Amino acid sequence: MAFDTPLPLRSGAVMPGYALMVETYGTLNANATNAVLVCHALNASHHVAGMYGEDPKTAGWWDNMVGPGKPLDTRRFFVIGVNNLGSCFGSTGPTSIDPATGRPWGSRFPVITVEDWVDAQARVLDRLGVTRLAAVMGGSLGGMQALSWTMRHPERVAHCVACATTPSLSAQNIAFNEVARRAIITDPEFHGGDYYAHGVVPRQGLSVARMIGHITYLSDDTMASKFGRSLRGGALGYGYDVDFQIESYLRHQGEKFSGYFDANTYLLLTRVLDYFDPAAEHGGDLAAALASARARFLLVSFTTDWRFSPERSREIVRALLANRREVSYAEIASPHGHDAFLMDEPHYHDVIRAYFERITRDLALEDVA
Amino acid sequence: MAFDTPLPLRSGAVMPGYALMVETYGTLNANATNAVLVCHALNASHHVAGMYGEDPKTAGWWDNMVGPGKPLDTRRFFVIGVNNLGSCFGSTGPTSIDPATGRPWGSRFPVITVEDWVDAQARVLDRLGVTRLAAVMGGSLGGMQALSWTMRHPERVAHCVACATTPSLSAQNIAFNEVARRAIITDPEFHGGDYYAHGVVPRQGLSVARMIGHITYLSDDTMASKFGRSLRGGALGYGYDVDFQIESYLRHQGEKFSGYFDANTYLLLTRVLDYFDPAAEHGGDLAAALASARARFLLVSFTTDWRFSPERSREIVRALLANRREVSYAEIASPHGHDAFLMDEPHYHDVIRAYFERITRDLALEDVA
Repeated sequence: MAFDTPLPLRSGAVMPGYALMVETYGTLNANATNAVLVCHALNASHHVAGMYGEDPKTAGWWDNMVGPGKPLDTRRFFVIGVNNLGSCFGSTGPTSIDPATGRPWGSRFPVITVEDWVDAQARVLDRLGVTRLAAVMGGSLGGMQALSWTMRHPERVAHCVACATTPSLSAQNIAFNEVARRAIITDPEFHGGDYYAHGVVPRQGLSVARMIGHITYLSDDTMASKFGRSLRGGALGYGYDVDFQIESYLRHQGEKFSGYFDANTYLLLTRVLDYFDPAAEHGGDLAAALASARARFLLVSFTTDWRFSPERSREIVRALLANRREVSYAEIASPHGHDAFLMDEPHYHDVIRAYFERITRDLALEDVA
Repeated sequence: MAFDTPLPLRSGAVMPGYALMVETYGTLNANATNAVLVCHALNASHHVAGMYGEDPKTAGWWDNMVGPGKPLDTRRFFVIGVNNLGSCFGSTGPTSIDPATGRPWGSRFPVITVEDWVDAQARVLDRLGVTRLAAVMGGSLGGMQALSWTMRHPERVAHCVACATTPSLSAQNIAFNEVARRAIITDPEFHGGDYYAHGVVPRQGLSVARMIGHITYLSDDTMASKFGRSLRGGALGYGYDVDFQIESYLRHQGEKFSGYFDANTYLLLTRVLDYFDPAAEHGGDLAAALASARARFLLVSFTTDWRFSPERSREIVRALLANRREVSYAEIASPHGHDAFLMDEPHYHDVIRAYFERITRDLALEDVA
């Protein structure tokens, strides 16, 4: 979807005309009351569910959650995936041409915020004829967008489903992001963000950044049970090549990621995370920030998520209760750390499924397919 | 201290003649029964206590613990600090000349292990006329050396004091080390470890490595209370320069460290950590590994240490109890994470002080100064 009207950004900058990749699933009902916006996290895209052709590798990033008969059932709901502004899966971002210079934006691409994304998504809904969402849903950074929707466009959201998220990054969260950024920015192939012109990518820095991120997505327990101290070759090598399975795994993750993800986008998305802090404008009072919300809420956290721990979800729950909002909260026992929100955990999926059945009743929805 | 006799290493390599920096405090008594070996962790040295001249910046790394009237009282104990083989504070290491090539060892310096260090330290004791230690003491990687002493030279250790340590790194611990190594090795200024010949140092990689390490030394709580989401300039910059105080702090730590620490030594010391695993030779049975120990033990851990958590110390305690060893264990409530072992925490220092008074009685020691 191309948008000609410039988008004013929270930074004060203005995004000129831009395009967003959008993918939808299911059918919008006659009253347009069954739409669910699914917001993606750091490295995902508009491709939420389904496959392109027969290749299972092309499955959407939340394909276990969204589809016919799945917890978010596309026989009943019209699901919308949007690749956010600044990302690198077809939407306008740092790799796009800046009309003012005729060259790729690079690191000069404006720093976006969660609020800017929400505003851009609202225009997508307008285009699709969706006035009010049955639900906005997301995990991690996607959960931040879901929360922001309820504050920024309260009349347009019936329900908010936010998983494994936080009302703001902690100092430790920011610290990990900053190290990742330093790894990218200090890679000589970064060229101040203009690596496109040099025909290179800061692959090593991006790889290190991803390795750092990956450690924070997994729990200590998962790493212990999946890799432990297992050696790849059966004996110590007494050198700096791969000895342990965990090293091999992380290197592989880093290399794979640096082969498809844009480094400037990575910088941008970590800043989007850092900057999200709706309470800040209200003297640090999250309840005051959420006072405008009118939605009903489901919050889900995972016991071993040390990136955005259950305590951070409980902060949100408490702030919503202080506003007498209706809120359901599930703290799922899972060994899988932050990544659990993307996984097919039966108890978790049951909770989401039950909640969407409740939305179905609330909004008196019927199957459309 | 120069040593001409080659040192056989666990890897199968042999270290030719080498030199170790040694610093001692207090006076060895007539029977040589009051010696305490203090083992250093990653980035410390032989300079355990005291100052060089008047400059407080030159204080030893454990000066709050070791000195006249301090928990490890140098009026009574003869304290020995050794800069370990492979380190970069004057002992033979990667920056030293390899006699076989006439060039600096660089990354060809043999990969050392905790056990090799212990053997090298034993030769230092021989030279000093110390047959048996009143105690061997260390924190973190230093605690591993203290534990190893009790297994490798059981008759030479009366007491072992091991703080904030672990019987082996977890997969997550190794993961952080591996990312740090990748940051160094993929820095183009690393030149395969031969950066000395190029007149450069892999400063950016070393800086990123240190930033990663630093995050793991502090607790989430400490970071939250010390930095939180405080901004350095009072407003968001909407860019990738420093916005948050935590970013400024970490960058400063990284830059400072990369100005004085050798990158090859950093690689080496992370491998020493990775490889320590005394249980591995006994089918993973730590109690079997510790069966040879004859010392009495004090183990100390800190509640918010998520690098080497209290649970890891408890593993050691259980393995010692299975061997009917005498072991005292203190789990100190501290907000300071792994770094707590270096800090002046009253309860912690009281425990150490009391334990050294017990050693005094055990060995019938008297003040020598």
